[in-house]
Amino acid sequence: METQQVKAYGTTATTEPLHEIMISRRAVQAHDVEFEVLYCGICHSDLHQVKGDFGGFFAPIVPGHEIVGRVTAVGNHVKNFKVGDLAAVGCIVDSCDHCDHCHDGLEQFCDEGVTYSFNSPDKISGGHTFGGFSKKYVCNERYVLKMPPFKDLAAAAPLLCAGITVYSPLKHWGASAGKKVGVLGIGGLGHVAIKIAKAMGAEVVVFTTSPAKVEDAKRLGADEAVLSSDAEAMAKYNRKLHFIIDTVSAKHDVNTYLNLLRHDGTVVLVGLPPEPLEIHAFNVVMGRRSFAGSNIGGIAETQEMLDFCYKHNIVAESEIINIQDVNTAFERLEKGDVKYRFVIDMDSLKA
Amino acid sequence: METQQVKAYGTTATTEPLHEIMISRRAVQAHDVEFEVLYCGICHSDLHQVKGDFGGFFAPIVPGHEIVGRVTAVGNHVKNFKVGDLAAVGCIVDSCDHCDHCHDGLEQFCDEGVTYSFNSPDKISGGHTFGGFSKKYVCNERYVLKMPPFKDLAAAAPLLCAGITVYSPLKHWGASAGKKVGVLGIGGLGHVAIKIAKAMGAEVVVFTTSPAKVEDAKRLGADEAVLSSDAEAMAKYNRKLHFIIDTVSAKHDVNTYLNLLRHDGTVVLVGLPPEPLEIHAFNVVMGRRSFAGSNIGGIAETQEMLDFCYKHNIVAESEIINIQDVNTAFERLEKGDVKYRFVIDMDSLKA
Repeated sequence: METQQVKAYGTTATTEPLHEIMISRRAVQAHDVEFEVLYCGICHSDLHQVKGDFGGFFAPIVPGHEIVGRVTAVGNHVKNFKVGDLAAVGCIVDSCDHCDHCHDGLEQFCDEGVTYSFNSPDKISGGHTFGGFSKKYVCNERYVLKMPPFKDLAAAAPLLCAGITVYSPLKHWGASAGKKVGVLGIGGLGHVAIKIAKAMGAEVVVFTTSPAKVEDAKRLGADEAVLSSDAEAMAKYNRKLHFIIDTVSAKHDVNTYLNLLRHDGTVVLVGLPPEPLEIHAFNVVMGRRSFAGSNIGGIAETQEMLDFCYKHNIVAESEIINIQDVNTAFERLEKGDVKYRFVIDMDSLKA
Repeated sequence: METQQVKAYGTTATTEPLHEIMISRRAVQAHDVEFEVLYCGICHSDLHQVKGDFGGFFAPIVPGHEIVGRVTAVGNHVKNFKVGDLAAVGCIVDSCDHCDHCHDGLEQFCDEGVTYSFNSPDKISGGHTFGGFSKKYVCNERYVLKMPPFKDLAAAAPLLCAGITVYSPLKHWGASAGKKVGVLGIGGLGHVAIKIAKAMGAEVVVFTTSPAKVEDAKRLGADEAVLSSDAEAMAKYNRKLHFIIDTVSAKHDVNTYLNLLRHDGTVVLVGLPPEPLEIHAFNVVMGRRSFAGSNIGGIAETQEMLDFCYKHNIVAESEIINIQDVNTAFERLEKGDVKYRFVIDMDSLKA
């Protein structure tokens, strides 16, 4: 397969910082869209993958899966994109397209295993996929999103992962007017969840361990914000919430939050704590409550989310950085020192 | 309030066996139904309460909450029962009747706390409630079930707790034709779950730790039965089941069963393991799966379940005993030596 050389930021070892490298991408095939990467968000899972936390480190690794760009070339059979269009790629760049999950628009659960936008075996090109920390991206149009013309295009990049990760469960579990929705944790995911849940019409109550974030939650649009260490304030929400989206990726006590649910309520985990979470039988049995999980969303739903956020003027609170500062950004991300998402201006990577 | 003396089997201390005692019940009030107890099932939670395992032991304790009888008297305002009718009482004998849960037919989750049929503070009579190990029961007709004329009335008694405990989640999570339903554990609850799920039209797969029960599961109507220690046999069900009803009351690994679910599938716990269960994030996040719980069912749904079981000729596999053998039955129950439910013939307690 014909290839092209593309400038990128990556590393060959989990112990080494990211630096400028050249990667090889396939030349545009009949169904491919090629675009210049304008902005790429930084998600905690980029950091996890670079450090090899999830296993399966393919060298060189080039992270980035919140990718926004402008189309530079299209293959002969491409129907929905033309040169000059805005385009975006999120977590998923390939799937079998014939299993039940793919048919149901749940490509993220593809029976044959989804191809992620980086650090994933690449069934089309061979080798492995390279992410958005690069000047160009090439992807089958089936997995390329139409990027609406957000005024702040950079700040919209994190929607490609953080946005869909919270939009999908909020929609699936019916966040809407008359519903009281809890958001547990305010970070990259939680702060977008507040905005989307509000736009869906729900009443939003935020739970955080940080006094500073109690105030920030209200600025972000939450109706109420509760310091989770304040037992008295917490008790006021016993059996009051229809649904809680749990964005915490460290070990935490889910039972406390199960008890805040009305009957038939659900705590939905979208974080990935490395240790198992303990659940007491009584906390699910009483009130017929559920503890569930959700993982990103399918392609059609990601498009729907982008259109929804554009309509409701929702973007992530973003700190724009140059690619040369990405290692510092990773260090700050590890310490939780970001409000609430880093986005790389890829113009800083000179071709 | 006028009272009457009733012969019963109970005990005043958690360390002492049950024996014949006299208890005081209220005389029939305007909305009450009084009935002679014909049969009373023995549930593991009777044993737990007698041993004080759940706390809150009110002496003397008289267990029994799967109570079938024939009406002997009705109050002036009773509309739906007359002397000579079959009647039944399950777990619930009172609730506030005005909270959202009660209005939604979920009296078991009453905001003000439900009154259980025994060992529960009694808001009407004062003192505490006495269960069905007694010659007579008196209950407000709002909580009395119409007992259909089952051919084997004794074997129908366990439906009042075991039956509704599995019927309610099977119905709520949509067991029906085209659905593959797992039943985890074959005991008092599990064996009834097999029968009800089959009658609802589902394909039923049983998981058990006991080789002997693999065969028994098929006799009970299961389509397939799997020894859970057989990893190869288990793997065949990966992502195949729509729903699993988990009747195990000891600590066990729920993750194994979450992995057998299709996307959007649910493991529903109806047992009450005393220790917390550990859940790995990936097992709910991948496939948008849920771990939920369910607790008995409301009054209207219990009536619906009785009518359903009568129509489909479903009763529990029961060993009928005399009340004088109840302590031996408790010992055997503790060892799991019963297939699958003890029922007391209350005629053995002479008035």
